[in-house]
Amino acid sequence: MQTTVGISNRHIHLTKEDLQILCGIDTLEEARPLTQPGQFASTLKLTIQTPKNKIENVRVLGPTRSYTQVEISKTDAYTLGIDPPVRESGDVKGAALITILGPKGTITRDCAIIATRHIHIDHETREKLGLLDVSKVKVRLFGAKGGLIDAVSIKETNPAYFELHLDTDDGNAHLLKNGDTVEIIKE
Amino acid sequence: MQTTVGISNRHIHLTKEDLQILCGIDTLEEARPLTQPGQFASTLKLTIQTPKNKIENVRVLGPTRSYTQVEISKTDAYTLGIDPPVRESGDVKGAALITILGPKGTITRDCAIIATRHIHIDHETREKLGLLDVSKVKVRLFGAKGGLIDAVSIKETNPAYFELHLDTDDGNAHLLKNGDTVEIIKE
Repeated sequence: MQTTVGISNRHIHLTKEDLQILCGIDTLEEARPLTQPGQFASTLKLTIQTPKNKIENVRVLGPTRSYTQVEISKTDAYTLGIDPPVRESGDVKGAALITILGPKGTITRDCAIIATRHIHIDHETREKLGLLDVSKVKVRLFGAKGGLIDAVSIKETNPAYFELHLDTDDGNAHLLKNGDTVEIIKE
Repeated sequence: MQTTVGISNRHIHLTKEDLQILCGIDTLEEARPLTQPGQFASTLKLTIQTPKNKIENVRVLGPTRSYTQVEISKTDAYTLGIDPPVRESGDVKGAALITILGPKGTITRDCAIIATRHIHIDHETREKLGLLDVSKVKVRLFGAKGGLIDAVSIKETNPAYFELHLDTDDGNAHLLKNGDTVEIIKE
């Protein structure tokens, strides 16, 4: 049971209201499409900041969502001096406090997370692969620094592009590139 | 079969000759001891550089060795725009080209590697744990981003402080801290 990997660099999701506060605009302009249908990298890059440090040029993904969230790696978290929880996207309760700086305004909110490792999959593929009855799987990664990663969430959307999403720490630790093949292990 | 983990940040090993070229000195001053007997973090920090970028304040470990080597993570390798091989410490054949900048001189040499995941162990402990007949093991890592890592080298020295050494990418990807407990799995 195989799929491919997509490595997600740090990024920001914004509500329409927060986009208005930060930038004074209502919609994001597409720079390039992402693999998930309808999702795109926007032309907007913002700075994220904590009392300890800042990271510039963090890409905002589009379209706007029902929640504002900053997804970073543990390496970024050390740079910023914060301790974000590992969470599913959208589950920002108890997330780490962070400031987003825009050209028109700033937002300081507990919305920084480390994203759970997850597999995007549609219902038909999930059924075909016998994964309807599980919410987590393990995934085998190959290569000189391969291994088996635990706690990979099954994230069903319809439609979906079937793909494992990892953050840059997982990608770099295991020497993975976008498009590399991995093996899904049902527990 | 358990041990603890030690996370190694990027660092430099130098020969006495290269220390003389870079800094005009013959010996390194100890800032603090490392867990491995006789090894120490020196007071010296140098800059490593490539045509693309540089990283400052890279710690030189002591004492001086029979080889000069820069150990970095894949994340560092992307920052620097180089593609170092995964290697045992000291095996710098085919390593990536890098420049080390010192106050008195510079060295440009193919000596940058990503260190193989490895376990420091002495002969007695290795025998007791039934690991005399293997050179590689797997290691189970626990926590919210746990998993099982492959290709962990058994590195016997006498004496040794029994410990798994991982780079910062592996540490951060798996949310590990120094001293966390891990489980050795003999294949």
